[in-house]
Amino acid sequence: MELKRLIGCASGREECDLLIKNVKIFNVFTGEISAGEIALAGGKIAGIGYGYRGKSVYDGGGATAIPGLIDSHIHVESSLLSPEAFASLAAAHGTTGIVADPHEIVNVCGIEGAEYIKEAFSRLSVGGVNPIDVYLQLPSCVPATPFETSGAAIDAEETAREIGRELFFGLGEMMNYPAVISGEEETLEKLQAAQEACKPIDGHAPTVSGQLLNAYAASGIATDHESENTAECLEKIACGMFVQLRGGSSASNLKSCASAVNEFNFRRFLICSDDKNARDLMRKGHVDDALRMLVQCGIDPSHAVCMATKNVADCYGLRGKGAIAPAYDGDIVLVKDMLSFAVAAVFKAGVLTVENGKALFDDEQKYFPAAVKNTVRIRSVKADDLKLDIKSGRARAMKVRPYGLISDEEIVSVDCKDGDVILEGTSLLKIAVVERHFASGNIGLGLVKDFGLKGGAIGITVAHDSHNMVILGDNNGDMARIAAALEKAGGGMAIVQNGKEYVFPLDIAGLMSSAPADEVIEKTESLTAIARKMGVKDCYEPFMTPAFLSLAVIPALKLTDRGLFDVTKFEFTTVEVKA
Amino acid sequence: MELKRLIGCASGREECDLLIKNVKIFNVFTGEISAGEIALAGGKIAGIGYGYRGKSVYDGGGATAIPGLIDSHIHVESSLLSPEAFASLAAAHGTTGIVADPHEIVNVCGIEGAEYIKEAFSRLSVGGVNPIDVYLQLPSCVPATPFETSGAAIDAEETAREIGRELFFGLGEMMNYPAVISGEEETLEKLQAAQEACKPIDGHAPTVSGQLLNAYAASGIATDHESENTAECLEKIACGMFVQLRGGSSASNLKSCASAVNEFNFRRFLICSDDKNARDLMRKGHVDDALRMLVQCGIDPSHAVCMATKNVADCYGLRGKGAIAPAYDGDIVLVKDMLSFAVAAVFKAGVLTVENGKALFDDEQKYFPAAVKNTVRIRSVKADDLKLDIKSGRARAMKVRPYGLISDEEIVSVDCKDGDVILEGTSLLKIAVVERHFASGNIGLGLVKDFGLKGGAIGITVAHDSHNMVILGDNNGDMARIAAALEKAGGGMAIVQNGKEYVFPLDIAGLMSSAPADEVIEKTESLTAIARKMGVKDCYEPFMTPAFLSLAVIPALKLTDRGLFDVTKFEFTTVEVKA
Repeated sequence: MELKRLIGCASGREECDLLIKNVKIFNVFTGEISAGEIALAGGKIAGIGYGYRGKSVYDGGGATAIPGLIDSHIHVESSLLSPEAFASLAAAHGTTGIVADPHEIVNVCGIEGAEYIKEAFSRLSVGGVNPIDVYLQLPSCVPATPFETSGAAIDAEETAREIGRELFFGLGEMMNYPAVISGEEETLEKLQAAQEACKPIDGHAPTVSGQLLNAYAASGIATDHESENTAECLEKIACGMFVQLRGGSSASNLKSCASAVNEFNFRRFLICSDDKNARDLMRKGHVDDALRMLVQCGIDPSHAVCMATKNVADCYGLRGKGAIAPAYDGDIVLVKDMLSFAVAAVFKAGVLTVENGKALFDDEQKYFPAAVKNTVRIRSVKADDLKLDIKSGRARAMKVRPYGLISDEEIVSVDCKDGDVILEGTSLLKIAVVERHFASGNIGLGLVKDFGLKGGAIGITVAHDSHNMVILGDNNGDMARIAAALEKAGGGMAIVQNGKEYVFPLDIAGLMSSAPADEVIEKTESLTAIARKMGVKDCYEPFMTPAFLSLAVIPALKLTDRGLFDVTKFEFTTVEVKA
Repeated sequence: MELKRLIGCASGREECDLLIKNVKIFNVFTGEISAGEIALAGGKIAGIGYGYRGKSVYDGGGATAIPGLIDSHIHVESSLLSPEAFASLAAAHGTTGIVADPHEIVNVCGIEGAEYIKEAFSRLSVGGVNPIDVYLQLPSCVPATPFETSGAAIDAEETAREIGRELFFGLGEMMNYPAVISGEEETLEKLQAAQEACKPIDGHAPTVSGQLLNAYAASGIATDHESENTAECLEKIACGMFVQLRGGSSASNLKSCASAVNEFNFRRFLICSDDKNARDLMRKGHVDDALRMLVQCGIDPSHAVCMATKNVADCYGLRGKGAIAPAYDGDIVLVKDMLSFAVAAVFKAGVLTVENGKALFDDEQKYFPAAVKNTVRIRSVKADDLKLDIKSGRARAMKVRPYGLISDEEIVSVDCKDGDVILEGTSLLKIAVVERHFASGNIGLGLVKDFGLKGGAIGITVAHDSHNMVILGDNNGDMARIAAALEKAGGGMAIVQNGKEYVFPLDIAGLMSSAPADEVIEKTESLTAIARKMGVKDCYEPFMTPAFLSLAVIPALKLTDRGLFDVTKFEFTTVEVKA
């Protein structure tokens, strides 16, 4: 009996599988760090202390042992990495678990996208042990809005059916907070289905406050990662929500929210990364990087570690996770100290999975099922399909706020020739959102001001949240070439500059690359460099800024495959300003 | 849809069922007390704040609202009260939930005893609402030891079958800690069954420390309520256990352990009462009394309240319990302040259940099924059956330590006449433990020194943990009369003094009375007074001290229906010291 052996080892009667010696051990229950040895058996922690014997012994070299780090909310797809490549980087930074919301890939591939993510992670192995636990959320907002064509739609009925599956740990972030607060039936049915299945529900409630926040919390949604400041955090905490401090690549509230944490409430904070790109994952880190940041912001290191370990386990009810104590899973990270959080080694279920900064599992062998391959299906785009006729001479252009995602409406004067707007000599670019799931031929057309690209076009098949093809350019011909190139690549990032094509395929659902992490970083950086040379302003990300131009839940003017959308009025509008 | 209405009320759009006005509200997440109003709908809390409308409005008169109090571990039977009478007293003191381990009644009646407890509580109602949630534990130690005859036995196989039932919330305190630590198969099978059913397991590990504590914690047992001092608490906390501070009638560690609580670890402490008698429940209180004590001991009131609310919910995974926040159950106690914790009113699921110190539900109508009636079955006891022949002139007598439960062995010289020990002129009493479940005729006989009873006999059918009949007396005739009287009463407490019989029936399983609480208190006090007049020393409880003389897990010399037991050697011994 497994339990009998664990108890036998804990009591010192039996020899353990592994003894980690020469470490200091951080205790999430007491907040103390004490010298000791960690005895493990059958993948679990048997005991802490001295006097144990182990079949194998690992010398921790004086490092500090903390529980395996758990990212409480992440969209793995945003790294542009395959699950395997992501896992390798994340593990090397001490991550042993992620609450993953496969929102992006499910919007493209439906449930099969989620199954793919889970399966790809599940196949990873070191000594029979999976290096990263994946708590998979069933995306709650597929599609994110009814104003665009996504690759899949999951209604309340399907949600109710799917949420009961073992595959799904909970319901992913409920971004449609206005629908929750207004009591929209379909949305509430999804929440109710998750509650009836006793599964946690993640939230997303930016700036929601007062009675509206009460309403959001009353729905049973347990978490939020959108707070922007201390007051917002504290109000959500008071409402009983767990607040996730976010250390994402583009969105981070670690600095602005750190002062919300105090000795009484620290158990109500978690750490998440939400969206983290490959470069940051490799060069800065994952949850460990957030820990460093938080400690630099003045948070007690013992509080910070709890936020990435025990608190996550408490919030989501992760049995056996989040502590170094008897009966807990043997998920342990050895860090140099609780200031640098430099990861020296990682154990998962008592097996060494990371040493000297390197994951010890094979991330080259990739799971790549048909369901996530060749997902880019468009009706052939000709240059003439991209003509935009503005008879009135006045048009609505999108202008993105520097370093942000909000795109304001700006009324611009335009000239036309041969039934198409003249871009030359203006600060305007044309933007096309090409439906790419069903080859419907839908193309939304619009104008973008002051983005700063000259002499070609740029395009990407990552376009939140429906991930159609977004193309920006200063001429129709190059834009059409981008569409063809991206179709051929099965999705990706592409540039046409002075007639020359540069393509980096995102061959997994048009969202992620099957290439190794360093190649993904190198290729995306070289494409970014080309875009910069073509004039894309420093205040914009050449690919990611366009990727958010079709997200019709962020103010104020967005473009989907069905046309220009006024987010403020929550209705479609026209590019042309009628007289 | 219920959820839709709750959200509607929370948002302020819809009128709530109840609005509690003019209160301060304690927030278990922030530790803060703030003015506000509590809006409730459908039994749940919709929102906190101002601007809500309620179909009915309750003026809190400036009281402080705290979440309903939850006793994290109690044997209801120890109150000698029926569940109905217990509920009435407990509710009046702010209790809205108990984790109940029906260890005593199940040792008498088997699973039907547990079913009775649950059903009796379930039938209580105020406006369709049950005033006290009962999280029923399946007793893990039935019988507590193999050295006595109990009314029921629940082996690992039955445990595995029963623990899966909705009736049982978890597995009751695993008192047999030596078996856990030594890895005894039958015991581990019980633990494993509970773990497989994902149900919590309560612990009981007095003075267990070091590797042995690691072993106990490795078994997956989550709680302990036996700590005696700060160091013991802190070691158990470090091992990942929840420590229950105990405010029981006979055993209280509130004072000796209070200093273990600090700002980092306070979430790991709970409050329990374990065993609480009717008198204390009525005159001192229940969990509220422990709160008062803890605050007097210097514990921050905000920490103390969490220990009786949110922490209990966290430990046991009680959904919707332990906080006043949106989506939580409307279980609210209004107290004068967080120092006196004087209960002004109680709401359960949004319904007023207690006002002006009185429970608003009927506790007179009692559930009294056949299974727990007439449980005292003995083979008729004649005076001669109680003869104790000591040929060697030397005998082992039990001597109870003052104010305690430990009974030491003392070798005494005795004279015999007609094959029976002579008590007259000595400080000895005879003790008989009469098997009372199956009328087997088993009678264990022994001697007790310095208890101080003269001129009769005293007996009770509460005798931990098998609850046989314990009789003490200075003559066989009166002792035999006690046996007959207790059989006739269906169990209870009895005294024969100078030929006069006084009996208070404990007609529910021989453990609890179906009488109202005030009658139970009055009758037990008047019997106690008689016993005192007969000379029972102040350092002993006339009934409860004998009730523990047959508990063969407490040192050092105990008597069961099968004979004298040496707890130190863990084997039966003889009263007579052979030459």
